[in-house]
Amino acid sequence: MLRAAVIGVGMTPITAGSNLSLANLFIEAAKQALDDSGVDKIDSLYVGNMMSGFLQHQEHLGALMATALGREGVPAYRVEGACASGGVAVNAAVKGLRSGLEEIVLVGAVEKMSGYTTPEVTAGLMMAEDRLKVASSGVTFVGLNAMIAREYMEQYKVSHESIAQFPVLCHDNALDNPNAQYRKKIGVQDVLHSPVVADPLRLLECSGIGDGAAAVVLAPLDDAKKYSDAPVEIVASTIASDTLSLYQRSTTTTFNASKHASARAYDQAKLTPKEIDLLEVHDAFSILGVMALEDLGFAKKGSGTRLLDDGECAREGRLPTNTFGGLKARGHPVGASGLYQVCELALQLKNEAGKCQAPNTNIGLAQSVGGVGSTVAVHILRRIK
Amino acid sequence: MLRAAVIGVGMTPITAGSNLSLANLFIEAAKQALDDSGVDKIDSLYVGNMMSGFLQHQEHLGALMATALGREGVPAYRVEGACASGGVAVNAAVKGLRSGLEEIVLVGAVEKMSGYTTPEVTAGLMMAEDRLKVASSGVTFVGLNAMIAREYMEQYKVSHESIAQFPVLCHDNALDNPNAQYRKKIGVQDVLHSPVVADPLRLLECSGIGDGAAAVVLAPLDDAKKYSDAPVEIVASTIASDTLSLYQRSTTTTFNASKHASARAYDQAKLTPKEIDLLEVHDAFSILGVMALEDLGFAKKGSGTRLLDDGECAREGRLPTNTFGGLKARGHPVGASGLYQVCELALQLKNEAGKCQAPNTNIGLAQSVGGVGSTVAVHILRRIK
Repeated sequence: MLRAAVIGVGMTPITAGSNLSLANLFIEAAKQALDDSGVDKIDSLYVGNMMSGFLQHQEHLGALMATALGREGVPAYRVEGACASGGVAVNAAVKGLRSGLEEIVLVGAVEKMSGYTTPEVTAGLMMAEDRLKVASSGVTFVGLNAMIAREYMEQYKVSHESIAQFPVLCHDNALDNPNAQYRKKIGVQDVLHSPVVADPLRLLECSGIGDGAAAVVLAPLDDAKKYSDAPVEIVASTIASDTLSLYQRSTTTTFNASKHASARAYDQAKLTPKEIDLLEVHDAFSILGVMALEDLGFAKKGSGTRLLDDGECAREGRLPTNTFGGLKARGHPVGASGLYQVCELALQLKNEAGKCQAPNTNIGLAQSVGGVGSTVAVHILRRIK
Repeated sequence: MLRAAVIGVGMTPITAGSNLSLANLFIEAAKQALDDSGVDKIDSLYVGNMMSGFLQHQEHLGALMATALGREGVPAYRVEGACASGGVAVNAAVKGLRSGLEEIVLVGAVEKMSGYTTPEVTAGLMMAEDRLKVASSGVTFVGLNAMIAREYMEQYKVSHESIAQFPVLCHDNALDNPNAQYRKKIGVQDVLHSPVVADPLRLLECSGIGDGAAAVVLAPLDDAKKYSDAPVEIVASTIASDTLSLYQRSTTTTFNASKHASARAYDQAKLTPKEIDLLEVHDAFSILGVMALEDLGFAKKGSGTRLLDDGECAREGRLPTNTFGGLKARGHPVGASGLYQVCELALQLKNEAGKCQAPNTNIGLAQSVGGVGSTVAVHILRRIK
């Protein structure tokens, strides 16, 4: 079976007020990735995006981006899985390559969230939930995650201080990332004393509104060395779903889709969590970062924060996590974040992460979440010796 | 390489006022397809849809539909290529199967367009065009297609009467299709004397606003006989793009994406147009049906209407076309139409088309178009002897 490798990487800075159009944001990342790979011809294009229909009144991003890139003709379509759209688009691209129908595959993802009112963006994000049964109630995504955080803290007797370490870690890492939206050091007390958004979640526990795009070029592993001195293999690419809404589940403090997608990924890669030494998790809210450490197999339920207590997730630790700042500090242009993760893992494994470089990592895992854990995409990437 | 077969088919009737929700429409078709296939477990779910973000304020259709079907857990995402979303979703599903990562694949597509004002739906459809450069001008899709029709008639000296035969053919065929939206016999003079929508296009040359869903279950060809007495092989699945907008092209009367997607499909299937004996084309407007006959290789440019003159596209003709009524008369719930086409080809090749059955067909081709020919998906299906 064909194996996929990353041969090119591109990312735009994330800002809350890009003056680039949706297409121009996308092609900035896509051209970087193509330049990085050195390829001229691509066989297909996959575009990840969540909200362009609602916010920009623009669909058909496959043909739009193919045209903007001057690659009209190429097979192109959009893939959507709410806030996991970037991860989901990589999965679609990996399948395209593995199908044998295409060799050089460009996959990019973009979201432009600024320039709209907060109620507009909030309504846009709620399209990830059930419109008829949940979104219509007026609850917001931060509200849903606040319920999860409250339940988690009570169920496992975990303090808010412990959870607040997650955004602190991310802000520390983002200081070294020139693309990061928030490059400002914060402490646990800053988090706890920042304004309440939806109790118990504070402002500094919530990812912000941002514009950005990321892209990678994939090639069959056997050809990858032709294009890149340091290609990175994608050894697993999986998706799992869960019920769309929290009220349909027996637990809110475990995301079964994270468990299922990662279990399948470990199986595909023939690896165990112990062999993972680099991690990108979907910390749209602090609690989700902590839960991810558990649901992906790195800590027992209720004890994810101990990895933070012990410094294991720091860039010099045993399991460097969100080394470019994660969703909280690098930024979370929702439909693109899953692809930023894959780009960042690839740069680390290529030893091209600059000041964000974590030492001695070989195998990285990225987890991208859509909705309240209703879609989870997991990718595992491995350094080629 | 793995080969894909259709082992189950499902379609809802198309109406302009379904009282089913988007999810309930989808599961009606999906359950039919699952029942038809007899499979219980599915490995993945692909959902085609164009406008749910804009009209229903609902994204994340992968997890939504997995949940609605009681299949939460299964990998699921949405695929979008404007009005070609249904065809594009089949392409994604075929790649999923061919990747070797999944065996039993459910692919469905849905669109719910009724219950909104005509300006709302018109604005939704224009999301297939460039929002910043074209849609903002106020032009509509029927207006763009009217420009194509005018240019075609002048360039090739083809009469309006000749083109008007296409919707007449579709209405004839829809008389026998219980799922069709418009079951009413019309003549060429009815078409020409129906109200002008955008000159020269008349009302009876334009597909309407409808709600509907269609689905198929795919399995590896080698296993297909286990599930179905009459499986149908998908021998080609291709996508091509073109510039998003007409003004970027050197010609408007040929869709290069149709030419490229079909050329690749003939290559994949090792077939020529002469071997195709059944056709489903994207006749959203009469002119597009005629152009498709040419761009897909069945007639020289400017002479597509001769096939209609000679009765070749009739159900008893040499090349039965749109045998269930096509977009004009079966209906065009935009993101679902490409999957209706695949369902209808499969039913014909299984000899299960009921009163719509065309005699002695073995190989069918479906063409699904997004935007002004900016995305084209082509599938070729073959009867298994």
